[in-house]
Amino acid sequence: MGARTLKDRGAGSLRREDVGARVRLAGWVARRRDHGGIVFVDLRDHTGVVQIVLDPDAEGLSAEVVHGLRAEYCIAVAGGVRARPEGTENPDLATGAVEVAVDELEVLSPADPLPFQLDDRVEVDEVRRLQYRYLDLRRPRMAENLVARARAIRTMRRVMDELGFLEIETPTLIASTPEGARDFLVPSRLQPGHFYALPQSPQLFKQLLMIGGVERYYQVARCWRDEDLRADRQFEFTQLDFEGAFWDQEDVLEVLEELAVAVTEELRGVTPRRPFPRLSFHEALERYGTDKPDLRFGMEITDLSDVFAGTGFRAFAEVLAAGGTVRGINAGALGLARSGLDGLVERARALGAKGLVWIVVEDHGELRSPVAKFLDDDERAGLVARLGAEPGDTLLLMADERLLVLEVLGRLRLDLGRPEGHDELAYLFVVDYPVFEPGDDGQLVPAHHPFTAPVDVETMRRNPAEALAKAYDLVLNGTELGSGSVRIHDPAVQAEVLEILGFAPEEAERRFGWFLEALRYGTPPHAGFAVGIDRFVSILRNEPNIREIIPFPKTQSGQDPLTGSPSRVSDAQLAELGIALRPEVLARWAEEAEGSSGE
Amino acid sequence: MGARTLKDRGAGSLRREDVGARVRLAGWVARRRDHGGIVFVDLRDHTGVVQIVLDPDAEGLSAEVVHGLRAEYCIAVAGGVRARPEGTENPDLATGAVEVAVDELEVLSPADPLPFQLDDRVEVDEVRRLQYRYLDLRRPRMAENLVARARAIRTMRRVMDELGFLEIETPTLIASTPEGARDFLVPSRLQPGHFYALPQSPQLFKQLLMIGGVERYYQVARCWRDEDLRADRQFEFTQLDFEGAFWDQEDVLEVLEELAVAVTEELRGVTPRRPFPRLSFHEALERYGTDKPDLRFGMEITDLSDVFAGTGFRAFAEVLAAGGTVRGINAGALGLARSGLDGLVERARALGAKGLVWIVVEDHGELRSPVAKFLDDDERAGLVARLGAEPGDTLLLMADERLLVLEVLGRLRLDLGRPEGHDELAYLFVVDYPVFEPGDDGQLVPAHHPFTAPVDVETMRRNPAEALAKAYDLVLNGTELGSGSVRIHDPAVQAEVLEILGFAPEEAERRFGWFLEALRYGTPPHAGFAVGIDRFVSILRNEPNIREIIPFPKTQSGQDPLTGSPSRVSDAQLAELGIALRPEVLARWAEEAEGSSGE
Repeated sequence: MGARTLKDRGAGSLRREDVGARVRLAGWVARRRDHGGIVFVDLRDHTGVVQIVLDPDAEGLSAEVVHGLRAEYCIAVAGGVRARPEGTENPDLATGAVEVAVDELEVLSPADPLPFQLDDRVEVDEVRRLQYRYLDLRRPRMAENLVARARAIRTMRRVMDELGFLEIETPTLIASTPEGARDFLVPSRLQPGHFYALPQSPQLFKQLLMIGGVERYYQVARCWRDEDLRADRQFEFTQLDFEGAFWDQEDVLEVLEELAVAVTEELRGVTPRRPFPRLSFHEALERYGTDKPDLRFGMEITDLSDVFAGTGFRAFAEVLAAGGTVRGINAGALGLARSGLDGLVERARALGAKGLVWIVVEDHGELRSPVAKFLDDDERAGLVARLGAEPGDTLLLMADERLLVLEVLGRLRLDLGRPEGHDELAYLFVVDYPVFEPGDDGQLVPAHHPFTAPVDVETMRRNPAEALAKAYDLVLNGTELGSGSVRIHDPAVQAEVLEILGFAPEEAERRFGWFLEALRYGTPPHAGFAVGIDRFVSILRNEPNIREIIPFPKTQSGQDPLTGSPSRVSDAQLAELGIALRPEVLARWAEEAEGSSGE
Repeated sequence: MGARTLKDRGAGSLRREDVGARVRLAGWVARRRDHGGIVFVDLRDHTGVVQIVLDPDAEGLSAEVVHGLRAEYCIAVAGGVRARPEGTENPDLATGAVEVAVDELEVLSPADPLPFQLDDRVEVDEVRRLQYRYLDLRRPRMAENLVARARAIRTMRRVMDELGFLEIETPTLIASTPEGARDFLVPSRLQPGHFYALPQSPQLFKQLLMIGGVERYYQVARCWRDEDLRADRQFEFTQLDFEGAFWDQEDVLEVLEELAVAVTEELRGVTPRRPFPRLSFHEALERYGTDKPDLRFGMEITDLSDVFAGTGFRAFAEVLAAGGTVRGINAGALGLARSGLDGLVERARALGAKGLVWIVVEDHGELRSPVAKFLDDDERAGLVARLGAEPGDTLLLMADERLLVLEVLGRLRLDLGRPEGHDELAYLFVVDYPVFEPGDDGQLVPAHHPFTAPVDVETMRRNPAEALAKAYDLVLNGTELGSGSVRIHDPAVQAEVLEILGFAPEEAERRFGWFLEALRYGTPPHAGFAVGIDRFVSILRNEPNIREIIPFPKTQSGQDPLTGSPSRVSDAQLAELGIALRPEVLARWAEEAEGSSGE
């Protein structure tokens, strides 16, 4: 019962030219129409769907079996391809001109009634979808997502191979490394009480490969981060990781463009224009309030501080006097009623703003706004001119400390302007990142991993807030697809940077001593990048959520409703690893058990 | 300082045609000859080696820098390609007709004195090699191993893509599954006290993909097994994993042949003959004493029980009377002295034999052996005829219980006959595996994972020792490259098989309930395989040890001497996961600390 006997054609491959041929098909009952007589079945396999016709009275068929067919039965059939009767062709279906008159039928495997309909148009609760992921994957959209992901990755590999990169696997049971998020730990049995970590990225190993003389490395690498999950995060994710020696930022960006263009052509059939636009981090922030601006639309943030330099409007005047800024966006013809405009003010407050000023430009150029009466003619004219305002436009102004204004206006810009879906594709490089960024408590914290080359070490030491790093991001439609940097290849610079980043000498030695030593054996200049494949493919597939393009994702609480992971394990298993559950965990379980048995 | 400015040619790419060209090269100082005047350097990069010539007195060069060059300095140079003076060409080097007269030199990164010489001919302790893996990888053989591995994997993907297989990633944080070895566990932070497992293979997920309508799946999959390490085992390994629906064993073996042939052609430039030979498990065991016979040589095991049916040699007679067997191999012209022959007896004893009989055929057909006097003429003649013995041959006979005889003679056969290296390639399929195999205590234990289809469930139940499974292995030169099976696709059969395998109904439900449910929604017949890429490439590369073709392997004790993994972690990290170190581990560490501080 091999492929050759069960199946010699794909269901979706049959065409008018096949009329008269005898075919063997195997697949699933996608739909059936059974009114007691002839039974019509849409037979689906991985190539598509074809209509098959089963006459319960025909020789070789059992009426009981034919009428017993149900949705998602797995069946094998044989029969002749014939043209559909005139008027019954289905032009929406690639196989719509033909049907197969079945004279052999075998039910390979029946199906229980389904927990949900396998129809792209039916909304199903996601946990339920994940619990029955094997059924969910039969839905055409999900099946196409699997194919698109494979094609995207194959295209990336093709480009990297053509460019002379060598695919190399780096280890996944490693020492804990300092990235932004928590490591997943793996207890060692041979050394009880010791732990491996799952890598957040192959960062240090790819740098070691550069030291090892591999001048072009890439890997489609699984990585792990123990972070709380969001729509665009999973514990495990896949990135196209690459690195080149004797290289600089320009070389990396060129490879990225080739990759992005090739993958876009493969999945979308269109060729993005090269070179991709570039913005410095500073400019991106100033104009769009974010370091990953969505360039599919304008609505740029405009500095109005000089327009209001001498304003009598107290709220603005006070902010400016305190060193703050007044900026605004022209949100265009929103056509919002008063309640909608007030909603924007609420939204701004929720984002941390103390207030938001809306101004609607009336038909004759007059300004309607709660603050209109405080603005003099010059201010009105300056405002309209600076924001290019036309009758009908809504202007949103905010006055406060610069970073807050940029962030809030940047978020409002997205709320108001961002196109739905991803039909348009706006690639962008953001370059010239600062070395440090403001942390939650306002203190400067490193913006990148400690192997990122600063433009200048002296500036980094003397004026950290101004120091730039040789770091760059690739952005698509307002989503960061990945980031990279030129790395430090001089061990003295690396030691100095670790010191400036706040690592005490003993800690630097303990954690990175082996790496600092590696740098001392003829390390080439090198640079690299990592592209998040899950995000990239989800945008190209117009999917709002990366879980849609991951075959078996976890829920937001990190669980797999299908297999039940994570799960409890025996104490004997833990004993081998030199670990035990904490008393508080056991106590909580005991309580839970009591609670549930008492009810 | 990008690639375009540092380097416009590969060092190993220069040829006589390039004479007169000006080139920019960058790489490492592989060798230098510096007698105070002109300095000759072999410059190495990932494309090969070329000789460069540095005149310390030349304009643009600094004598200090030129004479300061040391082994493995990373440098960039520019200069003109010229023909080497007649008589100084090096025909062993692809670039041996030319040299580069350098007029610009930049030391990109100096190198400390090396911990070992980067020469393939120098033997270095492996732990030291791993501690400086980044230097070890610069050795030509290791660099070639990296390239070969990438080419092998690329070839496998090409074949799978051409055959219509879809590359799909399965999760690595999964529920613990029942395979042969221990799972690595990963504690969950969001659910303290719960654990993920790292997969030993994508087995259940690839079966779910078959249920999900993916008819052709493959993946170059990282897998993990917490086993004690041997030369051909690592905690993490990579396999080419594939599965097909509407499929049978023949389809799988055909794909395997295409894969093996393509990879062999890519790495060896030769085309193995198809179809590959096949042996049943039973026949392999009978003829070679193992289920992974090395077919590069004969020396088959021959049953001699009937020759000695009425023997007066008591040792044989007693074994035969007790239901045992007498078998032998013709080890050919070993030319061993008495001490060497006694050594074979010792080796057999070490393998568990009670004894081993050696017989040397003398020039005139006489038999020299400690037991010769106990054999009558018929026995002598039968023995010689059955083993095809000729003067000079050494015959080795053993009498005992059948499986022990086969195992010991099989091991001796390998000791005596196995060719060194792997220049010859003997592929083989072993098929018709039994469902059960004898375990350590003589009890029958399942030989495969519980999703393997038996040929017949009734035989499995009534006569387990005789039952066969639809399981098969691919063997190369006596090494198992991988194994596969037809899977059970009928949930009733799966439940029955779990029961026969000894899973209590509640345990089966708890561990596999979700999978048994998945089988109930129209599961196609399916079958698959997994090829161990590390082993496969190591054989094709003539490497005795898989660590040679893994970029960053662990030592046999599971450690990475370079990065120091596995390592201790803080109690705070463990607390988040709901776990703690066991008191005995802490006590041992305290003792160690005391011991070391007291000294």
